[in-house]
Amino acid sequence: VAVTVTWPGGLKSAGVASGIKPDGALDLGLIVAARPLAWAGTFTKNAAAAAPVLWCRSLLGTPVRALVVNSGNANACTGPGGDAAVRAVAGAAAEVAGCEPEEVLVASTGPIGVALPAGAIVASLPEAAGALTPDVDSFARSILTTDTRVKVTASGSGAASLVGVAKGAAMLAPNMATMLAFLVTDASLDAPALQSALDAAVHRTFDRISVDACESTNDSVFLLATGETSVNEAAFTAQLESACSSLAEQIVRDAEGGSKLVRISVRGAADDDAAVALGRAVAGSTLWRAAVHGADPNWGRVLSALGSVDRSLDLGRVQLSIGTEPVFAHGAPAGSLDTAAKVMAADEFEIDCVVGEGPGAAQVLSSDLSPEYVTLNAYGTT
Amino acid sequence: VAVTVTWPGGLKSAGVASGIKPDGALDLGLIVAARPLAWAGTFTKNAAAAAPVLWCRSLLGTPVRALVVNSGNANACTGPGGDAAVRAVAGAAAEVAGCEPEEVLVASTGPIGVALPAGAIVASLPEAAGALTPDVDSFARSILTTDTRVKVTASGSGAASLVGVAKGAAMLAPNMATMLAFLVTDASLDAPALQSALDAAVHRTFDRISVDACESTNDSVFLLATGETSVNEAAFTAQLESACSSLAEQIVRDAEGGSKLVRISVRGAADDDAAVALGRAVAGSTLWRAAVHGADPNWGRVLSALGSVDRSLDLGRVQLSIGTEPVFAHGAPAGSLDTAAKVMAADEFEIDCVVGEGPGAAQVLSSDLSPEYVTLNAYGTT
Repeated sequence: VAVTVTWPGGLKSAGVASGIKPDGALDLGLIVAARPLAWAGTFTKNAAAAAPVLWCRSLLGTPVRALVVNSGNANACTGPGGDAAVRAVAGAAAEVAGCEPEEVLVASTGPIGVALPAGAIVASLPEAAGALTPDVDSFARSILTTDTRVKVTASGSGAASLVGVAKGAAMLAPNMATMLAFLVTDASLDAPALQSALDAAVHRTFDRISVDACESTNDSVFLLATGETSVNEAAFTAQLESACSSLAEQIVRDAEGGSKLVRISVRGAADDDAAVALGRAVAGSTLWRAAVHGADPNWGRVLSALGSVDRSLDLGRVQLSIGTEPVFAHGAPAGSLDTAAKVMAADEFEIDCVVGEGPGAAQVLSSDLSPEYVTLNAYGTT
Repeated sequence: VAVTVTWPGGLKSAGVASGIKPDGALDLGLIVAARPLAWAGTFTKNAAAAAPVLWCRSLLGTPVRALVVNSGNANACTGPGGDAAVRAVAGAAAEVAGCEPEEVLVASTGPIGVALPAGAIVASLPEAAGALTPDVDSFARSILTTDTRVKVTASGSGAASLVGVAKGAAMLAPNMATMLAFLVTDASLDAPALQSALDAAVHRTFDRISVDACESTNDSVFLLATGETSVNEAAFTAQLESACSSLAEQIVRDAEGGSKLVRISVRGAADDDAAVALGRAVAGSTLWRAAVHGADPNWGRVLSALGSVDRSLDLGRVQLSIGTEPVFAHGAPAGSLDTAAKVMAADEFEIDCVVGEGPGAAQVLSSDLSPEYVTLNAYGTT
C-alpha cells in the first residue's frame, strides 16, 4: 500500500534494502534534517534493553540531525559487539548527514541475540542518503517486520503538522511504548516540552495496548520537532495523543496472527492506573484471547483475569457486558450468550467491565490469540 | 488407565456419572470417612473464587467427614444460586455419609458461569455412596476435565501413608494451588500442623507450575488425615512436598495442548521469591512457549521475560543455558544454537537462568504453547 504523506518541516527520509532481510525487502530507514532538531523519546523499561535503546537514552536532551532504523535484527542482548555496531552505524550516518555521531538516533527491530550486520548498513547508508524524499512511504515500509501493512498517521490543519509512522506485530505489551514509532512535527517546542507531551500521550495510548503481553527489548517512540510553528502546549499534547492513539490502534489491528480488535473498557476502578492494570490482565489472558479468536463468549475468563489482579474485587458490584449485552450483573450470570457470541463474531467489539470501586477508567486495546500466532512464533531461530 | 492405589486409614471413595458431562463420563466424586477427620486446605487467591471455595474456606479448622467433587462445571461466578447449590450438595452428601452438612467439603471444576445442576448431583449421591471402595481409581477419574490421564501419587513405607490425586489441564498458573488435588494420610497431626505442612509443600510445588499463566477461580488442595500413625512433622512435610511435587509434575506433563515439560531453573536471584517471580515470567511468556513448541532456541525471549520483571537485571552477569549448552554468557550470545535446538527437541528439558544477584533459587515447571491449546480454548460456551 503506497502512502502519500510527507514529513512536516522539510524533513526527508528514505527506505532501502541493505540485505539484513534475506528476502531483499526494505530493511533500512534513514531520516535526515537540515539542522539540529529538538526531540523526545520514550523507551522500553526492560532491563534487557537493546544497544540502540541505550544509545538513544544517552542522547536525550541534546539535539539530533538524523535517525537510522533497521528491521530484521533487534541488536538486543548482543553484548559489547552490539554497542560497537550502534557506534559504527551512527558514525556512518553522521557522515552522510554531515553531522556528529552523537546527533544520530538509532533504532532496531527484529530477532534478539543475533549480531547486527553493521557493515551492510554502513555500506547502504549512502544509497539511502541519495534516495531522501519528503514522502514517508519507503521509510514506513522499511521498519516493518511481520507487520502486514504500513502504519501512518497525519494531522495538521489549523495547528502544528504532525506525522507519525509505526511498526508493531508481536512482543507487544503495554509498558511504555511497545513497538517502534517515529513522530515528526513542525511545532516549535523545546525538548522538555516535547518530552512532557510525549510522556502524556504514550501513557494513554501505546501503554494501553497489548498483543501478547510480552515486553520487548527495543520499544521506542521518537518525537522530532522542526520548530517552524508556534503551538499551544495543551493543544499539541492532545494532537499528539490523537496521533499516538491512531498508530496504537493500527498496530493492534495488524497484530501478529490476530484477526480481531477488542476494546477492553474498564470503569469504576479505584483510579485510572488500577483500571489500566485490570484491562491489561484481561488483555493478557491467553484463555480469554483464545475465546475471542473463536467468538466464544467465555466471560468467566474475563472475571477470572480481573480477580487475579484485584484481590478485593467484589463480584456483587461487577457488571460485565460484551458489546451492549450484559453477561454478568448483580453477582450472577445475565443476558444472552447467543447475543454476546454475535457481538464477538465481528472484527471489532468492546467489552465493558464495571468494577464498582471508584472513578477510575481506561480502555485497553487487544487482539485475539490464534493458532497462527503460535505457528508464526514456534520456529525460525535455527 | 486403571490405578491400583488405595486410600490410607480406611478411607473410601467413589466416582460416578451424574450427567453433568454430556458424554456420560464420570463427573462426581465422593470421599467418606468413618469418623471426623482433621484437614487442611489451600485455595485460589482469585477474588472471583468459586462458591465451593468460599464454602470450604468457611469450614477450615473444623473436622470433616466427607468430600464431594464434581467435574464439568466450576460453579464459579454463579451468584447466590451457586451458594445454594453448594449447600444442597453438602446437605445431600451429609445424608448419605451420616454427618452434618458443615462436615462436607465441596469442590468443583469446569466451565465458569454456568449454573451447577445440583439436582443431578443430589440424585446421584446415593449411587456414589453405594459404590464406595478403598480404591482411588474411579474417584481419580471422576475429577478430570480436559486431562488425558489420571494423576496419582502414593508413598508410605516406614512413615505415614500418603496418597494424592489431582487434576489440571488449563487455567493453571502458580499462585496457590492451581488445580484440584486431594491428599489423604493416616498421619496423626492436628489441623494447624496439617495446614502448616500443606502451606509449605504447596508453596514449593503447586505454586511453581504454570500452564497458561491464567489463575483459576477454583484451585483447591485438600489434605485429610485419618490419624492412625504418629509422625515427625518435618519428615511428614518433606513427604508431603514430595507427593505434591509428583502431582504438580504430572499436571504439567498433561497440560492442555502441551507436549513438553520445561524445567525453568533460576539461580542467583535476590532471594527464592524473586527466583520464583523470574521463573514465572519465563513460564508465562507466550512467545517463549511458542518457541518451546517448535523446539526453537529463541533464548532472547527468555532474557526479555526476565528483564520485564527484574528492572535491575544486569545482562553482564546473566548466564543462560538450554540443557547444558550455554546460549548467553558474559553479556553476549554464546554456544551453539543447533545444540540448543537438539536439547529442545526432547519431550523434557531444562533451561538454567543464572542472574548473578544473590543466593535465591527456584525451579518452575512449565509447558509449551501449541496451536491445539488455542483451538481447544476458542470454542465451547455456546
